[in-house]
Amino acid sequence: MTLSTNDDLRFMQVALEEARTGLEEGGIPIGSCLVVDGEVLGKGHNRRMQQGNPILHGEMDCLQNAGRQSAATYRRATIYTTLSPCDMCSGAILLYEIPRVVLAENHTFLGAEQLLTSRGVELVNLDLDEAVELMRRFIDANPDVWSEDIGEESE
Amino acid sequence: MTLSTNDDLRFMQVALEEARTGLEEGGIPIGSCLVVDGEVLGKGHNRRMQQGNPILHGEMDCLQNAGRQSAATYRRATIYTTLSPCDMCSGAILLYEIPRVVLAENHTFLGAEQLLTSRGVELVNLDLDEAVELMRRFIDANPDVWSEDIGEESE
Repeated sequence: MTLSTNDDLRFMQVALEEARTGLEEGGIPIGSCLVVDGEVLGKGHNRRMQQGNPILHGEMDCLQNAGRQSAATYRRATIYTTLSPCDMCSGAILLYEIPRVVLAENHTFLGAEQLLTSRGVELVNLDLDEAVELMRRFIDANPDVWSEDIGEESE
Repeated sequence: MTLSTNDDLRFMQVALEEARTGLEEGGIPIGSCLVVDGEVLGKGHNRRMQQGNPILHGEMDCLQNAGRQSAATYRRATIYTTLSPCDMCSGAILLYEIPRVVLAENHTFLGAEQLLTSRGVELVNLDLDEAVELMRRFIDANPDVWSEDIGEESE
């Protein structure tokens, strides 16, 4: 099944809605969803703050919520994420050989995109101002939380 | 703080104990612990089966259980794992810039060791028969579960 730009924009809205839910919960506004055969199989958002959990980036929470899936299922999936995937989330994408990643932006943070493409993963960047703005407002108010989330020292 | 081989063997026993706990719970016997300044900060084991959770490899469960830590803490940590870390777990190690990984074996599965060393992570393989044997018995009895855990199709 080939996804069109309209499909990508529609599924990214699911990921953005997750990001906004995270923000309402007091968390880092990054969301994700996993789509297989045109259906959302799972969705999630960063829950570092909500659960005190350093592994629950948006994509990881999404994969957790999607539950156990077969290799064949992952291999026809697209994962949507509101921010360029970090080393950890990219590693999960490589482990399960998810062939396609759609991101909303990489201005805020540039993840392991080069590693993903070098391993044959298709990357699409929708470059949505809405996603950049969501992160900008959060980081301005919570710079230390953001540094922690990407493994950096606080300023 | 420099860790000796004796320290490494001692902390690996903590990871192996986690692996055995996982086996008793009906799970995949892979365990891990995170050591900082000579203290075990967290430990965990693969809980795919126990929680129906595809992201809870041993190292991920360990990092989850260790909870939120500062960048400075991760940067003086050693993570112990009873099996060579996969792309996902290696990605988490890179995200948090954990500088040292001690593994019990890489006969059962060869993870992203090259990626880790290319990024400056020190890898020590203790090459313990005990860890190989634990996995061999599990995989012989549960080949499909093991394939799923490493993102492969079942035979």
